[in-house]
Amino acid sequence: MDLSEETAKRIATLQAKLNKKLGPEYISQRPGPGGGPKLTYAEGWKIINLANEVFGFNGWSSSVVTLAVDYIDLNEETKRFSVGVSAIVRITLRDGAYHEDVGYGLLENSKSKGAALDKCKKEAVTDAVKRALRNFGNLLGNCLYDKSYAQEVIKIKVPPVCNHFTFYVAHS
Amino acid sequence: MDLSEETAKRIATLQAKLNKKLGPEYISQRPGPGGGPKLTYAEGWKIINLANEVFGFNGWSSSVVTLAVDYIDLNEETKRFSVGVSAIVRITLRDGAYHEDVGYGLLENSKSKGAALDKCKKEAVTDAVKRALRNFGNLLGNCLYDKSYAQEVIKIKVPPVCNHFTFYVAHS
Amino acid sequence: MDLSEETAKRIATLQAKLNKKLGPEYISQRPGPGGGPKLTYAEGWKIINLANEVFGFNGWSSSVVTLAVDYIDLNEETKRFSVGVSAIVRITLRDGAYHEDVGYGLLENSKSKGAALDKCKKEAVTDAVKRALRNFGNLLGNCLYDKSYAQEVIKIKVPPVCNHFTFYVAHS
Amino acid sequence: MDLSEETAKRIATLQAKLNKKLGPEYISQRPGPGGGPKLTYAEGWKIINLANEVFGFNGWSSSVVTLAVDYIDLNEETKRFSVGVSAIVRITLRDGAYHEDVGYGLLENSKSKGAALDKCKKEAVTDAVKRALRNFGNLLGNCLYDKSYAQEVIKIKVPPVCNHFTFYVAHS
Amino acid sequence: MDLSEETAKRIATLQAKLNKKLGPEYISQRPGPGGGPKLTYAEGWKIINLANEVFGFNGWSSSVVTLAVDYIDLNEETKRFSVGVSAIVRITLRDGAYHEDVGYGLLENSKSKGAALDKCKKEAVTDAVKRALRNFGNLLGNCLYDKSYAQEVIKIKVPPVCNHFTFYVAHS
Amino acid sequence: MDLSEETAKRIATLQAKLNKKLGPEYISQRPGPGGGPKLTYAEGWKIINLANEVFGFNGWSSSVVTLAVDYIDLNEETKRFSVGVSAIVRITLRDGAYHEDVGYGLLENSKSKGAALDKCKKEAVTDAVKRALRNFGNLLGNCLYDKSYAQEVIKIKVPPVCNHFTFYVAHS
Amino acid sequence: MDLSEETAKRIATLQAKLNKKLGPEYISQRPGPGGGPKLTYAEGWKIINLANEVFGFNGWSSSVVTLAVDYIDLNEETKRFSVGVSAIVRITLRDGAYHEDVGYGLLENSKSKGAALDKCKKEAVTDAVKRALRNFGNLLGNCLYDKSYAQEVIKIKVPPVCNHFTFYVAHS
Amino acid sequence: MDLSEETAKRIATLQAKLNKKLGPEYISQRPGPGGGPKLTYAEGWKIINLANEVFGFNGWSSSVVTLAVDYIDLNEETKRFSVGVSAIVRITLRDGAYHEDVGYGLLENSKSKGAALDKCKKEAVTDAVKRALRNFGNLLGNCLYDKSYAQEVIKIKVPPVCNHFTFYVAHS
Amino acid sequence: MDLSEETAKRIATLQAKLNKKLGPEYISQRPGPGGGPKLTYAEGWKIINLANEVFGFNGWSSSVVTLAVDYIDLNEETKRFSVGVSAIVRITLRDGAYHEDVGYGLLENSKSKGAALDKCKKEAVTDAVKRALRNFGNLLGNCLYDKSYAQEVIKIKVPPVCNHFTFYVAHS
Amino acid sequence: MDLSEETAKRIATLQAKLNKKLGPEYISQRPGPGGGPKLTYAEGWKIINLANEVFGFNGWSSSVVTLAVDYIDLNEETKRFSVGVSAIVRITLRDGAYHEDVGYGLLENSKSKGAALDKCKKEAVTDAVKRALRNFGNLLGNCLYDKSYAQEVIKIKVPPVCNHFTFYVAHS
Amino acid sequence: MDLSEETAKRIATLQAKLNKKLGPEYISQRPGPGGGPKLTYAEGWKIINLANEVFGFNGWSSSVVTLAVDYIDLNEETKRFSVGVSAIVRITLRDGAYHEDVGYGLLENSKSKGAALDKCKKEAVTDAVKRALRNFGNLLGNCLYDKSYAQEVIKIKVPPVCNHFTFYVAHS
Repeated sequence: MDLSEETAKRIATLQAKLNKKLGPEYISQRPGPGGGPKLTYAEGWKIINLANEVFGFNGWSSSVVTLAVDYIDLNEETKRFSVGVSAIVRITLRDGAYHEDVGYGLLENSKSKGAALDKCKKEAVTDAVKRALRNFGNLLGNCLYDKSYAQEVIKIKVPPVCNHFTFYVAHS
Repeated sequence: MDLSEETAKRIATLQAKLNKKLGPEYISQRPGPGGGPKLTYAEGWKIINLANEVFGFNGWSSSVVTLAVDYIDLNEETKRFSVGVSAIVRITLRDGAYHEDVGYGLLENSKSKGAALDKCKKEAVTDAVKRALRNFGNLLGNCLYDKSYAQEVIKIKVPPVCNHFTFYVAHS
Repeated sequence: MDLSEETAKRIATLQAKLNKKLGPEYISQRPGPGGGPKLTYAEGWKIINLANEVFGFNGWSSSVVTLAVDYIDLNEETKRFSVGVSAIVRITLRDGAYHEDVGYGLLENSKSKGAALDKCKKEAVTDAVKRALRNFGNLLGNCLYDKSYAQEVIKIKVPPVCNHFTFYVAHS
Repeated sequence: MDLSEETAKRIATLQAKLNKKLGPEYISQRPGPGGGPKLTYAEGWKIINLANEVFGFNGWSSSVVTLAVDYIDLNEETKRFSVGVSAIVRITLRDGAYHEDVGYGLLENSKSKGAALDKCKKEAVTDAVKRALRNFGNLLGNCLYDKSYAQEVIKIKVPPVCNHFTFYVAHS
Repeated sequence: MDLSEETAKRIATLQAKLNKKLGPEYISQRPGPGGGPKLTYAEGWKIINLANEVFGFNGWSSSVVTLAVDYIDLNEETKRFSVGVSAIVRITLRDGAYHEDVGYGLLENSKSKGAALDKCKKEAVTDAVKRALRNFGNLLGNCLYDKSYAQEVIKIKVPPVCNHFTFYVAHS
Repeated sequence: MDLSEETAKRIATLQAKLNKKLGPEYISQRPGPGGGPKLTYAEGWKIINLANEVFGFNGWSSSVVTLAVDYIDLNEETKRFSVGVSAIVRITLRDGAYHEDVGYGLLENSKSKGAALDKCKKEAVTDAVKRALRNFGNLLGNCLYDKSYAQEVIKIKVPPVCNHFTFYVAHS
Repeated sequence: MDLSEETAKRIATLQAKLNKKLGPEYISQRPGPGGGPKLTYAEGWKIINLANEVFGFNGWSSSVVTLAVDYIDLNEETKRFSVGVSAIVRITLRDGAYHEDVGYGLLENSKSKGAALDKCKKEAVTDAVKRALRNFGNLLGNCLYDKSYAQEVIKIKVPPVCNHFTFYVAHS
Repeated sequence: MDLSEETAKRIATLQAKLNKKLGPEYISQRPGPGGGPKLTYAEGWKIINLANEVFGFNGWSSSVVTLAVDYIDLNEETKRFSVGVSAIVRITLRDGAYHEDVGYGLLENSKSKGAALDKCKKEAVTDAVKRALRNFGNLLGNCLYDKSYAQEVIKIKVPPVCNHFTFYVAHS
Repeated sequence: MDLSEETAKRIATLQAKLNKKLGPEYISQRPGPGGGPKLTYAEGWKIINLANEVFGFNGWSSSVVTLAVDYIDLNEETKRFSVGVSAIVRITLRDGAYHEDVGYGLLENSKSKGAALDKCKKEAVTDAVKRALRNFGNLLGNCLYDKSYAQEVIKIKVPPVCNHFTFYVAHS
Repeated sequence: MDLSEETAKRIATLQAKLNKKLGPEYISQRPGPGGGPKLTYAEGWKIINLANEVFGFNGWSSSVVTLAVDYIDLNEETKRFSVGVSAIVRITLRDGAYHEDVGYGLLENSKSKGAALDKCKKEAVTDAVKRALRNFGNLLGNCLYDKSYAQEVIKIKVPPVCNHFTFYVAHS
Repeated sequence: MDLSEETAKRIATLQAKLNKKLGPEYISQRPGPGGGPKLTYAEGWKIINLANEVFGFNGWSSSVVTLAVDYIDLNEETKRFSVGVSAIVRITLRDGAYHEDVGYGLLENSKSKGAALDKCKKEAVTDAVKRALRNFGNLLGNCLYDKSYAQEVIKIKVPPVCNHFTFYVAHS
């Protein structure tokens, strides 16, 4: 159970990173359900990129424990579909630590049943990935649940990102 | 079964931490059900942060043992939904000790079935995480069940937190 | 099967602790069912704190073997719900010894089905934790089943506890 | 298969203890079913204390193999419930020896279904614990099935127990 | 497969014990079913005591393989219950040898369904324990199936047992 | 696969024993079904005693693989029950060799359903034990299937057994 | 895979034995079904004795893989039962080689359902034992399927067996 | 994977044997279904004898993977039964190689349902044994599927077998 | 993962063999379904012989993964049966490589249901064996799927085979 | 847990590759559902080629965890089919890291049910492969979820690819 | 995880092969569904031959994970059958890497249900084999999904293949 000094240092560095909070460039907002107050959140791809940055591309794994359609309701008048899907995802680190959490995808009044299922299933999985990852600390999303942080961070201006992307050049 | 001195010391330190009680900055209140007395509780994200502080980000794991919808009732008059969901969560420490406990999420008179399920499922899991963690000691929430503590702690003034967050700077 | 001297001593100390009975500060009373005689009991959080004190935070584990709703009855007149839930919990010590026992949660005439289920499920699990723990000896609750002890202990005055709590100070 | 001398001695001491019979201070009586002759028995908590004394707190384990409600009958006239529950419990010693046996909990004409289930389930488990333990010898209850012993023991006067309990003092 | 001399001797002693027959002090009689001839049998607690004497308290184990209610019949006229229960029990010795056998519990015309189930289930298990144990030899009950033995043994006078029980004195 | 000389000798002795046939003192007769010719058989307890003599009390094991009620027929006129039960039993020797075989218990026109089930289940198991044991050779019952042997053995006079039983004296 | 010389010799001897055919003293005949030609067969007990002779009592094992009642037909006129039962049995040698085969038991127009089931189940198992054993060679029954052998062997006169049985004398 | 020279030689000899074709003494003929051309086949017992000759009695094993009744049809007019049964059998060599194949047993217009099932089940298993064995080469039946071989072999005269059987003499 | 030179050579030889195509003596033709063009195929026994030649009799194994009747249709007018059966077979080489593939057996307008099932089940298994084997290369049948090869090979004249079969001579 | 320097370097190189974003030659666009804004995506074969380039052909594996048809709806008027299929795929790297994610395939108003199922099932699996792979970083598709990247990349002109393919020349 | 130089070289060679694209001699075309544009594809036997060339006959394995009939529809007017079948196949390389993918077989308006099922099941498996193999790179079919490649390759003239096949000569 006693760790080598090197490993202990590596873990302390990781812990310090995970304690930090998301800067404003990671934050988005969307209207709350039913006209309620705006929701502050981070997009899935940003959190995935952060996980890769913190743990490395081969340092974390994810599995879909369950993916279930809760309901597909057809409004007989409007012929539109409302769909709700829930997922449980498990995130496992290379050293065996893991968290499972639930995510949800829902859509109301979709013209297409299939498009609704497509969107909800993916949304549920991504949502669960985010909820499971946030258990590892502030940086992976736990800070977003702190209302005082959320109020402050959205006031900070995000400096314009210069879109100079580094593209991959396939070797031939 | 005999531990190295170093390990014994590490465990004693952890035990001392866990025996401490939550300071007022960890405490919230909400109205009790049915107009009853206020409930004193700690928000989920705070407890998760504490778990990470005490055990380290890779020192504890969580899994959703069960997640079940107990009922989805439609009020035929108001066309609103009442939903109840229960979860059992297991928290496991790196050395193998674990606790399982139950959590609950419920919502009454929601306009949207999906939004209700979304909220209740997440609430149930987070509630179960908190109930399972509190078995490890006062610091992770067991103190909240002590009514005399609860009465005292809410009287203490929480000094204003200065919102100078440490943000993460992605390496490039 | 022969133990080291150190281990034997540690076990003997534990055994002596467990043989002791709960002092009056651990004891509560509530009205018995159906207007019967008062019931003498210890609150769940106190027993959990004792388990952590005796075995250490990583010295005991708990799991919910079963959690089942026995009935949800709706009184058609009063529109109130009566709910009964039973749980079996297993408590396991680090050295492998374990006890399983049953707990019960019940509520009559609740306005809200969900609130009743929430309360009963948690009550059932906590009750089972207590019943399972008491098998380890007097200190963890077995003494409460001794009627002569119960009659005596409630007569002892509990000295006023001075509420000077030791709060946790998060490291930053 | 050959034991060390020390182990052989330890086992012989245990065997001698288990061969002894319960003194009158362990014995209770209650009316037999249907107005029949009095039943002689030992209360559950006493037998559990004895098991802890003989085997040590970490020397025996118990698990609930099955817990099943046999019937819940509602008397339509009296609106009272009769409930019967059976349990099978396994008691395992540290060295692997085990016994399983059945226990029963029953209640007739209870006003509350929940209270009846609560009581019967706990009674069934405790009863099964006692039946399983008695297989280990006289001391853990097998002597109670010997009618000649039962007739004699209830004639012996139990000296008044002086209620000077040793209470646990929590370390701080 | 070759045994040490010591083990061989221990086994031979056990075998010699098991070959002996039950003395008259172990024997009881009860009326046969339907007014038939008296049945000669040994009470369960005596056989259990013998098993503990022969194999030691930690030398044999028992498990309930199945416990099933065959029927619960209500006589509509007399409102009385007839109940039949069968059990299969496995007895295992420390060295791995085992026997399984079936036992039966039945009761006719019981006023209480619960009392009948209680009695029949316990009777079935104890009966199966006895049937399984008798496979190990005469001493554990096989001799009772020998009609010529049964006829003789009941003629022998049992000397009056002096009821000087050795009681257990709890250490304090 | 090559055996030590000692083991080979032990096995040869056993084989020689098993090749021998049952002497007349082991043989019983009963009327055949439907008024047919008498059936020659050995009682269960004798075969069990022989198995213990040949293999030793810890040299053979038995388990009930299946025990199934084939039918319970009620004659509506006579209100009597006919019951048929079959069992499969496995007999295993210490060195791993085993045989499984089927046994049957049946009773016609019993006044009591329970008494019939009780008798048939036990009969089926004992019958299966005997059928499985006979596979090990003549001595354990295979000779009984040889009609010429059966005709001869019943003609031999069994010398009167002197009923001087060796009784067990419990150590105290 | 290369065998010791001793083992190779032992196997060659066994093979030579198994190649031999059954002498006339092992052969029986019974009328064929539906008045067809006589069937030539060996009785079960003889084949079992041969298996014990060839492989030794602990050199072969048998298990009942399946035992199923194919039909129980009641002739409404004659009130008689026709029953068909099939069994699959596996015979395993000590060195791991095995054969499985099917056996059948059938009876037509039995007065008693139970007697028919009893007989058919036993017949099916014994038949399957014989069919499985014959796969090991001529001696264990394969020769009986050779019609030219069958025609010849029944013409040979069996010398009168002198019934001087070797009886077992129990040690005392 | 490289074999010893001895093993390689042994395998080559086996292979050469298996490449050979069945001589006329192994061949039988029967009318084809529906008056079609004659079918050329080898009887089951001959193929089993060959398998024992080639692989040795302990060199091959067989198991019944499935045995299923496809249909039992009753012709309401003739009151006769038509039955079809299929079996899958696995043949395994000592070195682990195996083949599974299907066999069939069918009978039309049988007076007795039981006799039909008896015959079909056995036929199906034997047929499957043969089909599985033929995968090992010509000698075990694959040559029979070669029509040009079949046409030739039936033209060869089988020399009269002199029926001098070698009988087994039981040791006494 | 690096192979010995000998093994590498052996594999290369096998690979070269498998790359070769079937000569005309392995090829058959039959009318295509529905009067379509002729189908070019190899008979099952030839492919099995090839597999034995290439891999050796103990170098490949086969198992029936599934065998299912897709339909049995009765034409009510003609009283004839049409049957379709599918099989999945797995072929495994000694070094662990394997292929699974599907085969089909179908028959239309058969007078006998049983004969149709018999034929279709065997056809399906053999077909699947061939389809699975062809995955190992041209020689085991993959070349047959190459239409240009198929067109050419059927033009080549097969030299008359001289039917001098090598017959097996049983050792005695 | 400490890696060799070589391995650490190899992983760092891989990480750097995975952090890069897809160049415009990997990007396609298609109309959004319901006339919505264009969707920016990468074709499946390009992502598979990238995975092979980054991890090597034997460095990643994929399995279909579930593949389920959500609905097949027939429009009774137009006689056209709408089909929705979902898949969960797991991608596993050689060192054990893995991601699971969901994919969807849907088609509306297809004339052929089969063609729709064919297309949707393949689409669902490929979609899930892409969603699972993108968890490994920008290069494998995560960048596509970044709207600012998507807006920029589609503005870049892709230089005309000169179609000089390197073809495989089979060795002969 | 560090590979020997030899292994690394072997893998690099394989990777280079797999990166190459299929030459025109591997390409076929067929009309698209519903009169759509031509589909460019490679026949199954060619891809199987390539897999054997690249990985060796014992370097890759295949298994049918699922094979399911999606529908069998009978057109009541034309009495023709339309059938759809899907398969999931797993391809595994010797070093453990694997891919699973789905394949489809469909046929419309077949006169024979059986012929349709036969064809569709085989088509589905072969299709799945191809889809699973293409994940290993361009050479095994991934290039076919690149539309620009497909357009170019079909313009290249395939030189006439000289049909000089190398036939296998059986050893005798």
